[in-house]
Amino acid sequence: MKIVEPTSTQIVLPSGELMGASGRYSKRVSELAGCYADHGAFQALVALRGDEIAYVVDQFAPKTTEGDLIFGTSTLEPGDVAGEFFMTRGHLHKKADRSEIYQCIAGRGVMLMETLEGRVAAIELVPGHIVYVPPYWIHRSVNVGPEKLVTLFCYPADAGQDYEIIAAAGGMASLIVSDGRGGWRQAPNLRYVGRADRTKPGSVE
Amino acid sequence: MKIVEPTSTQIVLPSGELMGASGRYSKRVSELAGCYADHGAFQALVALRGDEIAYVVDQFAPKTTEGDLIFGTSTLEPGDVAGEFFMTRGHLHKKADRSEIYQCIAGRGVMLMETLEGRVAAIELVPGHIVYVPPYWIHRSVNVGPEKLVTLFCYPADAGQDYEIIAAAGGMASLIVSDGRGGWRQAPNLRYVGRADRTKPGSVE
Repeated sequence: MKIVEPTSTQIVLPSGELMGASGRYSKRVSELAGCYADHGAFQALVALRGDEIAYVVDQFAPKTTEGDLIFGTSTLEPGDVAGEFFMTRGHLHKKADRSEIYQCIAGRGVMLMETLEGRVAAIELVPGHIVYVPPYWIHRSVNVGPEKLVTLFCYPADAGQDYEIIAAAGGMASLIVSDGRGGWRQAPNLRYVGRADRTKPGSVE
Repeated sequence: MKIVEPTSTQIVLPSGELMGASGRYSKRVSELAGCYADHGAFQALVALRGDEIAYVVDQFAPKTTEGDLIFGTSTLEPGDVAGEFFMTRGHLHKKADRSEIYQCIAGRGVMLMETLEGRVAAIELVPGHIVYVPPYWIHRSVNVGPEKLVTLFCYPADAGQDYEIIAAAGGMASLIVSDGRGGWRQAPNLRYVGRADRTKPGSVE
């Protein structure tokens, strides 16, 4: 067995950078095509700001074997597309029975979650709050505030990500949109067609 | 498959309580017999403060099946036994290839780690710092400051704990003791006899 060395790190604010992370990837605004309900508004945004970073993920992924952990930061810029707040692409774990925890470090957000059957949960992220995403829940982060949303995540190293499951259903059942008073609310996603063995859209709590 | 509900929680300071935790256990000072090098000083402390809480662990443990996570807070009181700082009992995971992450929330501490071969690592814990404890490392938290040491931990739900492995070797190879100037240093543990297939005490970095 190979002995890995212990590591210490910290989160740099306001950037959300995880010092000495072993990996980083980022998504530009233009790469989130298909995520937002208002296609025309998205195209207009891309014309203006398509090359800007929408979010960055820094992570420590020492190994991807069973029993190990991957942890890191997700830093999501503020913004909206015709009132629908900026969000991550979202995923279900490839091994769908793997869970994940997110701790809000800075900013104001929502963890939007959904089961395969279309049951929805939306839990607020404010600094210090920790959200447990149980096995079998699709999840994405949404930035509902005016600053960067920085979260610290941790999940089993062998979990993997299925990023297609959201797009294949026409998105998630709920949109997280501005309530027009500086807050957020859920709105039904009219493009949502549900998943696989289902014949009608899922019910939204 | 059983669908577990998502959960949100937060850490209460200065107590370190994890709101709505599904489980809590605590260790009194008297229950840490055998952990400290100076037996006489420990007995004297127990006579005075044996019933006081030494540390509390609050946790969310939704399930203990492979792929899930357990997370929670560890809150360790300040103090020392003849200069050796208060610490948790420490453990290796029963499934020794399971890793763990600790984030320091409040206080000042040291994560003391050791491989089965007796190689030592001691990493400082100050608020915001995150320590990754890789697979196969025995680990314990040590409070080297004047306040409660509060850490947030996360580990694979099927990891389990082997609490005997430290006692069986006469402790860990290093003690974390006061340097007499408000700081800490490592000192060799003279009771340490190493483990199992080893015939001489391990080397200390």
